Amino acid sequence: MDDYYYMKEAIKEAKKSLKEGGIPIGSVLVENDKIISRGHNRLIQNNSAILHGEMDTIENAGRLKGKDYKKTTLYTTLSPCPMCSGAIILYNIPRVVIGENTTLLGAENLLKNNNVEVVNLNEEEPRKLLEKYIEDNPEIWEQEIERVGFETTIK
Amino acid sequence: MDDYYYMKEAIKEAKKSLKEGGIPIGSVLVENDKIISRGHNRLIQNNSAILHGEMDTIENAGRLKGKDYKKTTLYTTLSPCPMCSGAIILYNIPRVVIGENTTLLGAENLLKNNNVEVVNLNEEEPRKLLEKYIEDNPEIWEQEIERVGFETTIK
Repeated sequence: MDDYYYMKEAIKEAKKSLKEGGIPIGSVLVENDKIISRGHNRLIQNNSAILHGEMDTIENAGRLKGKDYKKTTLYTTLSPCPMCSGAIILYNIPRVVIGENTTLLGAENLLKNNNVEVVNLNEEEPRKLLEKYIEDNPEIWEQEIERVGFETTIK
Repeated sequence: MDDYYYMKEAIKEAKKSLKEGGIPIGSVLVENDKIISRGHNRLIQNNSAILHGEMDTIENAGRLKGKDYKKTTLYTTLSPCPMCSGAIILYNIPRVVIGENTTLLGAENLLKNNNVEVVNLNEEEPRKLLEKYIEDNPEIWEQEIERVGFETTIK
């Protein structure tokens, strides 16, 4: 299985979130060519401040051993924010594959500066999913952007 | 009320965690001289990978407005890890007050580089609480350190 296969699975998670009335961002965690955890953005569904797709996936994986985290790749449909990037760095997840980063650019430099391999597949499907959501729910998205005052230039 | 008062409240949260069988690290979020949220480490209690004290507190605060986050100070009994620091940066929390950073030094440089004011009260009580826990539960602590392979030198 290649990166595009696992990204498709992350996109399935994004679509699950959309069906639940949430923001369509999804993620999967892969170890030894197996999906060991799945998750999606639950900010709206759970009225949560921390359950971005990547955080949900890391939480759903349970408390892995350090040596297992070091064998994983995290797939996420959208470029990871500073919080999710911090979690990736905390657990020494060595590789992150991103669906797209034009809707929002996360803390990719922080990841790279901490020796995380970052691959951007620059795919159309996750971008279109999120762009359509933003078009259909401009007030939710605007509130979210106001909430984080999103700075793409983490130092 | 001063920083020492709110740190006492964070220490109360650390003690709550200990009573629940968890790691004694606690936190409170303060806006306009009022505690608007409290939380503590729930890794053991909830078998969680993401509920550090600071994350629990940020989650318990709900989805605040950006302009409110910008008026808050986060108190935490222990220096915040890269994940919690990323969350603090994501939400533009401008000030973090730390009980101690000798048991474990977190990503304080990352916070400072992103214009977060970091104050270390260097208090004995939170340090003694955590040191005693580590002494009493060496295997849990060792597993936790193996899990994060804790790098204090985030770049």
